[in-house]
Amino acid sequence: MLEELKQEVYEANMSLPKLGLVTFTWGNVSGIDREKGLFVIKPSGVDYDELKPSDLVVVNLKGEVVEGDMNPSSDTPTHTYLYNHFPKIGGIVHTHSPWAVSFAAAKLDVPAMNTTHADTFYGDVPAADALTKEEIEEDYEGNTGKTIVKTFEERGIDYEAIPAALVSQHGPFAWGPTPAKAVYNSKVLEVVAEEDYHAMQMTMDNSRLPQYLLDKHYYRKHGANAYYGQNNAKSQSHAKHE
Amino acid sequence: MLEELKQEVYEANMSLPKLGLVTFTWGNVSGIDREKGLFVIKPSGVDYDELKPSDLVVVNLKGEVVEGDMNPSSDTPTHTYLYNHFPKIGGIVHTHSPWAVSFAAAKLDVPAMNTTHADTFYGDVPAADALTKEEIEEDYEGNTGKTIVKTFEERGIDYEAIPAALVSQHGPFAWGPTPAKAVYNSKVLEVVAEEDYHAMQMTMDNSRLPQYLLDKHYYRKHGANAYYGQNNAKSQSHAKHE
Amino acid sequence: MLEELKQEVYEANMSLPKLGLVTFTWGNVSGIDREKGLFVIKPSGVDYDELKPSDLVVVNLKGEVVEGDMNPSSDTPTHTYLYNHFPKIGGIVHTHSPWAVSFAAAKLDVPAMNTTHADTFYGDVPAADALTKEEIEEDYEGNTGKTIVKTFEERGIDYEAIPAALVSQHGPFAWGPTPAKAVYNSKVLEVVAEEDYHAMQMTMDNSRLPQYLLDKHYYRKHGANAYYGQNNAKSQSHAKHE
Amino acid sequence: MLEELKQEVYEANMSLPKLGLVTFTWGNVSGIDREKGLFVIKPSGVDYDELKPSDLVVVNLKGEVVEGDMNPSSDTPTHTYLYNHFPKIGGIVHTHSPWAVSFAAAKLDVPAMNTTHADTFYGDVPAADALTKEEIEEDYEGNTGKTIVKTFEERGIDYEAIPAALVSQHGPFAWGPTPAKAVYNSKVLEVVAEEDYHAMQMTMDNSRLPQYLLDKHYYRKHGANAYYGQNNAKSQSHAKHE
Repeated sequence: MLEELKQEVYEANMSLPKLGLVTFTWGNVSGIDREKGLFVIKPSGVDYDELKPSDLVVVNLKGEVVEGDMNPSSDTPTHTYLYNHFPKIGGIVHTHSPWAVSFAAAKLDVPAMNTTHADTFYGDVPAADALTKEEIEEDYEGNTGKTIVKTFEERGIDYEAIPAALVSQHGPFAWGPTPAKAVYNSKVLEVVAEEDYHAMQMTMDNSRLPQYLLDKHYYRKHGANAYYGQNNAKSQSHAKHE
Repeated sequence: MLEELKQEVYEANMSLPKLGLVTFTWGNVSGIDREKGLFVIKPSGVDYDELKPSDLVVVNLKGEVVEGDMNPSSDTPTHTYLYNHFPKIGGIVHTHSPWAVSFAAAKLDVPAMNTTHADTFYGDVPAADALTKEEIEEDYEGNTGKTIVKTFEERGIDYEAIPAALVSQHGPFAWGPTPAKAVYNSKVLEVVAEEDYHAMQMTMDNSRLPQYLLDKHYYRKHGANAYYGQNNAKSQSHAKHE
Repeated sequence: MLEELKQEVYEANMSLPKLGLVTFTWGNVSGIDREKGLFVIKPSGVDYDELKPSDLVVVNLKGEVVEGDMNPSSDTPTHTYLYNHFPKIGGIVHTHSPWAVSFAAAKLDVPAMNTTHADTFYGDVPAADALTKEEIEEDYEGNTGKTIVKTFEERGIDYEAIPAALVSQHGPFAWGPTPAKAVYNSKVLEVVAEEDYHAMQMTMDNSRLPQYLLDKHYYRKHGANAYYGQNNAKSQSHAKHE
Repeated sequence: MLEELKQEVYEANMSLPKLGLVTFTWGNVSGIDREKGLFVIKPSGVDYDELKPSDLVVVNLKGEVVEGDMNPSSDTPTHTYLYNHFPKIGGIVHTHSPWAVSFAAAKLDVPAMNTTHADTFYGDVPAADALTKEEIEEDYEGNTGKTIVKTFEERGIDYEAIPAALVSQHGPFAWGPTPAKAVYNSKVLEVVAEEDYHAMQMTMDNSRLPQYLLDKHYYRKHGANAYYGQNNAKSQSHAKHE
């Protein structure tokens, strides 16, 4: 079942090592079929050079395995929570990419300091609170999704406009309309985290982008008036890699 | 039309990922035929591994597309402005190479701190002012060229002697007598930005090169008395990669 | 003799350059046959691209060469000491991987600041004391093992739960139930050292993981209640790369 | 003439890009035949992927070209000066490797902070003074050699025991008994400069190695009592890559 989606999710998973986003097996991508209410996710702990599309596991929105011989990623409850609470996303990526992890360890947002950031993220990428002892013991992976969603709600962030978050002391999650787009967003986050780190070490100024520059770059690539690329008037969800 | 120039601009574009200067499609090179007053530029948002010479777009010095099926780079008005105001340049490169972007985000010039810098840039590479709200809303990409030219004029910098600039909060632009030479300058900027960052973290001293060392290294490679390479007395515009 | 173990140790040695953990010949892996009381180790100073399984040297637990035409690694007495004092380990790796060396040079533990760390190391990876003049002159390599074991004893660290150490001013050692697992632990140490460095530069807070988060991630992958990967209930010693 | 030496110098030059020590053409290696008093050096500004052994230029100890159609490296007078004043060296490397350049820009010695350093360099690698205006104008490249030699004399450093130097605001030079060994030393310098930088950012302590640890590691690999590698009792000049 879901053969086409499996292929798409497989390719998105395989792009993680090519983009330098994972060490060993430390990353996973899922993709969802919204009509069927089922998502496809990488099995837990499988080496990328051994992964096959048929290894992927099909899970429903209660987090139950519907098809597959292998254990799904141990992060499956996080994906489930995010799909349930961010109803417009089509793919999710979790990695431990090193620059994003450094910000997560320092419990710092990745600030919007350059236009590459603004092309993809319409503001700072938030560092969600680390989980409490109770949250960890109750349902660690589910509550990992919950702290992300709570952060977006409390800070009034649009999850489509800022399609990524850090979980403090843990690492980055990114999402998007498709698995491939989620991987793209994950890479952008890693790139801008590296650039921000170096800029932050060189200046004490508040060097966040002004709102009008954020607006310009974000809407140059997104929404009805976009004019970047070859499909200008298309929405983010239809654009290919920007 | 301009088949030879297209090939040259195509090869210059393709060298960007090889030199580690671009992620995804985030970069573009153009080259100009000064006699015809036409330049050739990368189409917007096309993956490097799909790019073909025939995809390149021909544009005139009013910024109008003269030939090509695809949209030109969204940065075309910046290229147009620079070609109009820097009349001796033959090629322009724009990237988001990470070290140069870090300096741009911190709104800092890339200081002349070592002889590699002086071999190519006869002084600090300036960080041009970020655009104002009005400049962004009026003509973002055109005014991106304008802030660069204004910075060179106000600070009395010779654009042939310092063939690159940062636009604050955005990223680097480089140029040169040919597209290949512009790419070369773009790479030098990235290399010296990395070296400067680390040197700046290690010392509080003003470690800029003295004028006489700038002179020595710059004129060892440029102008009538150059003696580096195999074509010593040739001008910069005829030298191959130095 | 020990042909299978030699192959295993050979492959583990060859994975070091692939994982970016060694420059030139600066690293070695050994593996032990506990029943026979013999271990197999890389010869000293041999290039990785010339190394063959038959070059490996067999050594007993007194540190005496039992088989092999070449000199064993000059670090053989360190391996011997560790095998004698850490009776449950099956493989040892010594490298000079650059991030771990930077912490060793600064005489700093690699702190547990993110969940990647906790997945493998149940707490800070300790920086053992540098050797004294007397210890160096008496038996340098043997006492290198001794300072590690002494640090684990004095600080009450379980060598199975934190399977790596730095020797101050020198570099990292890692171990595990198998040579491959020791290499894995060596890579994790390098990755988290890099992430910690950047996090430490960005924040003055004590950002060590709380005990309950350490517990969660460590026991998600280790022990009877592990649920990561495809072999959940298996102990660390039987799991493949996690 | 000197065909064997040419091949050796050619291979040493070609190893520079493989070891990540050069960008573009920014590096050169030479090797000397002490009996004939002639050295072989890379031509100026030739791309590594176009370089052939027959392109190499033969120069005498007055710095005069004896054989070769191409211009020798513009740094030839520096090599000449060093060969004349360091009579036991057989090969010289000059690069602009980025970590060494950062220390040179900051005018800082590369301190002996870890045992990798001590394995090759018996103490800090000195940053020689930048040249004065007069020295630059008089004979830039020759005086570049002179500032190195002067630094070694004034600080009483043995050029065989510390086979490298930085020239402040410029970059690193390394040497050794053979061209290959000089390249090796050049790479070690780059590696330890990176490690030192990070260690220096993490600690304010004086973390230089104590003399007895320097002694141990240096003499483990050099001199009559060396016991690293497969040729223990051989002197440095006969050892292969350590």
